[in-house]
Amino acid sequence: MEPANGNARGRAVIRVLLVHDECLVRSVLAEWLRREPDLGVYDTPWRSAPGRLRSLLPDVCAADLECADSYGLAPLGELGARPAGTPSPRLLVLASANRPGLLKRAVEAGALGYVDKEGSPEHLVRGIRRVAEGKRFVDDSLGFGFLKAAEMPLTRRELSVLSLAAEGASVAEIAGSLHLSHGTVRNYMAAINRKTGARNRVDAIRISQGEGWL
Amino acid sequence: MEPANGNARGRAVIRVLLVHDECLVRSVLAEWLRREPDLGVYDTPWRSAPGRLRSLLPDVCAADLECADSYGLAPLGELGARPAGTPSPRLLVLASANRPGLLKRAVEAGALGYVDKEGSPEHLVRGIRRVAEGKRFVDDSLGFGFLKAAEMPLTRRELSVLSLAAEGASVAEIAGSLHLSHGTVRNYMAAINRKTGARNRVDAIRISQGEGWL
Repeated sequence: MEPANGNARGRAVIRVLLVHDECLVRSVLAEWLRREPDLGVYDTPWRSAPGRLRSLLPDVCAADLECADSYGLAPLGELGARPAGTPSPRLLVLASANRPGLLKRAVEAGALGYVDKEGSPEHLVRGIRRVAEGKRFVDDSLGFGFLKAAEMPLTRRELSVLSLAAEGASVAEIAGSLHLSHGTVRNYMAAINRKTGARNRVDAIRISQGEGWL
Repeated sequence: MEPANGNARGRAVIRVLLVHDECLVRSVLAEWLRREPDLGVYDTPWRSAPGRLRSLLPDVCAADLECADSYGLAPLGELGARPAGTPSPRLLVLASANRPGLLKRAVEAGALGYVDKEGSPEHLVRGIRRVAEGKRFVDDSLGFGFLKAAEMPLTRRELSVLSLAAEGASVAEIAGSLHLSHGTVRNYMAAINRKTGARNRVDAIRISQGEGWL
């Protein structure tokens, strides 16, 4: 369905690109949003999102933070990429308080809106309208998640080490990839275990993935 | 909204319990299903599903296979638990072909319906109606997932070992839990790495979680 450029009341339509990896959920959510006369809604899975953003130039990009691609994180950074001279879309994310690492990544990607997936769907509509005006929208219920995100104990370097470990890389491979000595990688792993309260490397990966840090 | 026991055309209403862990998605999906006059739709997150099943006695339980509980698998087995003398609900699952282990678990739990999350939401409605009649419903697009589920290389014992490893347990702890010698646990881990094509334990966990075997 191609959204029109205006509605019956003559108000400008907010062009929204909805990004979600499950087709069934995405279709129902898009259809639900299309009942709002001021929203023009397109939808896409993550893998096609950067291309669709460039071709559609939406006002708001509303993206689910979970990404179905093999254990991958949503490529949030790419959502900001735009041809020179065109305005960036306002980014709104569908998030949950128990994945603080994902919230942190959304903040770093410059997201303006944060809608709690544990909340009411009406918040999504309100969030889209706020963000389209260039204003911040944050669900109160995400507060604890932001607090935990702020307390995220690992440094960027430690996260790089742990990400490689989570992909199954050995100490030698991690050392090679990051141009570090074996001893330094072992020191990083020890620091990671201590900071996350993990018993060993597998446990640190499990904890960090559960928190959405990896 | 309390569904009535019959509709305008006098046809019996199919009582559906929708199980999904994200409130926002669950609400929109339930509202979308409620447009069908022959469906009476209730919804719940996984943690309350067993209790709601016992109190509502729905005809069909339509459950998303992903479970938000910390890295947990959906407790599919509990969905069959019913007070003696009451019929079990027909189980329909929302699944995806790239998580064959979850498909396998749904088969083992006796699910009658399999709706692909990568497909159209209309399939969900069709699936619910078929399953309510006691008939099987399987989305064609899940075929490859079932094939991969049938090829799942790990034995039940190997999965137990790997599940404990994925929780961060050491070889000694796994040996203690499963009443095995350290050498036997190491042999299992070696077999798991070989069968999954993994480079090491972390890689085996990553691969098995990605396939939805763990």
